[in-house]
Amino acid sequence: MRSAIKNGILINEEDATLPVTSRSMQYAYSVYEALKLKNGEFVHLEEHYERLKESARGINIELKYSFDDIKRYLNMLKEKDGLYNETFRILLVGKENSLFITHNETKSYPDSYYSEGVDVTTYHGERFLPNYKTSNLLLSYLALEDAENKGAFEALLINRDGYVTEGTRSNFYALKGNKLYTAPDKDVLLGVTRIGVIEAAKSMNLEIAYDAIKAEDLFSFDSLFISSTSMKAMPIRSVDGMPVKRVMNTMVLRFSDYVGKWE
Amino acid sequence: MRSAIKNGILINEEDATLPVTSRSMQYAYSVYEALKLKNGEFVHLEEHYERLKESARGINIELKYSFDDIKRYLNMLKEKDGLYNETFRILLVGKENSLFITHNETKSYPDSYYSEGVDVTTYHGERFLPNYKTSNLLLSYLALEDAENKGAFEALLINRDGYVTEGTRSNFYALKGNKLYTAPDKDVLLGVTRIGVIEAAKSMNLEIAYDAIKAEDLFSFDSLFISSTSMKAMPIRSVDGMPVKRVMNTMVLRFSDYVGKWE
Repeated sequence: MRSAIKNGILINEEDATLPVTSRSMQYAYSVYEALKLKNGEFVHLEEHYERLKESARGINIELKYSFDDIKRYLNMLKEKDGLYNETFRILLVGKENSLFITHNETKSYPDSYYSEGVDVTTYHGERFLPNYKTSNLLLSYLALEDAENKGAFEALLINRDGYVTEGTRSNFYALKGNKLYTAPDKDVLLGVTRIGVIEAAKSMNLEIAYDAIKAEDLFSFDSLFISSTSMKAMPIRSVDGMPVKRVMNTMVLRFSDYVGKWE
Repeated sequence: MRSAIKNGILINEEDATLPVTSRSMQYAYSVYEALKLKNGEFVHLEEHYERLKESARGINIELKYSFDDIKRYLNMLKEKDGLYNETFRILLVGKENSLFITHNETKSYPDSYYSEGVDVTTYHGERFLPNYKTSNLLLSYLALEDAENKGAFEALLINRDGYVTEGTRSNFYALKGNKLYTAPDKDVLLGVTRIGVIEAAKSMNLEIAYDAIKAEDLFSFDSLFISSTSMKAMPIRSVDGMPVKRVMNTMVLRFSDYVGKWE
């Protein structure tokens, strides 16, 4: 049986529950992080902790757990369940600071996703408070469901002005010549992997443009890709069924969790 | 100890919980209704059932419980806990159609709220899928918290174009001469009480204009009010600290749940 952490205490995963009468649950008043344990080490733990704190602050919750607390809880859970490669989810609920940590097998994707690219769709909508990882995720759910119903891997969100901001669970990039485009920080989730992608791109002497691009201009770019903690950098093969100009093989350009470089 | 219903079965309220590992919980993928038991009778049960079904449909969930199912569950809970005047909350979670019914004391407000009016604030934001009562309620939470921090009772939501659409948990109306203004159906929650307010207004020979009004024009109207199942029709005394032209005493105009008329 899997274990979990609730408010610093090891429990059985099945006891990691929220009452349906809780106002925080009823209002999606919570924030979360997902991070990886890789070969026994937590990846980018500081960054995930800082973002959790920032997400909490964004909805007026003061995170009462220190970095050392969270690290200790993660290690307790890792030891208890004998984990080595795994994904952990931290959920912080409401003003009461209810903290849950659960874990799951780390998702992995076929090599072909990186060499041949993935199909994506578009969906009109903007995440509320895009800088923060809150549980107010109905738009993302519906957009991704729509993509999956169409056999696609991810949906790109198009804002009210017709610009592509981000995917439902990924950041988005477009490459043209020597220039890498990604939406302005204020409009997207500040992905931990996005920081690394940008660093890596700079180290490759690419120019970074913090400009969102219009949905109708997608096909004029050399190549498109998305990134996330689980996906790393993944090329896009088609948008709404139409092939993009060129699929960039990110097998050779794959972002490494450790050194902040393209592998 | 209070009871609750889970998937048609009577349980202890403390067992009405959702796992934090549930994707539906993590994505606020659920819909709900709140309805009153008044003197032993469920008020507007058909309307609440239809709206629950419609909210579910709006996020691609097919409600698998019939009207008779829900009515039976409500009655089981009412009998078990010996209830006569109470508010019930129905929560329908995810594709799995997990159904919870819980209950609480019916909120009541001081008579002065109806005779003297309440203070409201404004908050910029639009509910996602406003026609449906989903759990994706973070905007409403934050807007109401902001109002309460300022000593106000409710927040009015202002959309991207500067129009007042609705309150965080109420519909909004403005009266000028013989004309009652309320935002177009497509932009707001289709409140059960709003149906009654509109019916009652028509019976009073008021003209109904389905036009939202600009935030900056609020003070040019004769009077403003809000409505909801728990509030009925409640006059607004001030907006962001500035008094409105006139407070309409809804004690004499209070909407009755039963006859669809102003009391």
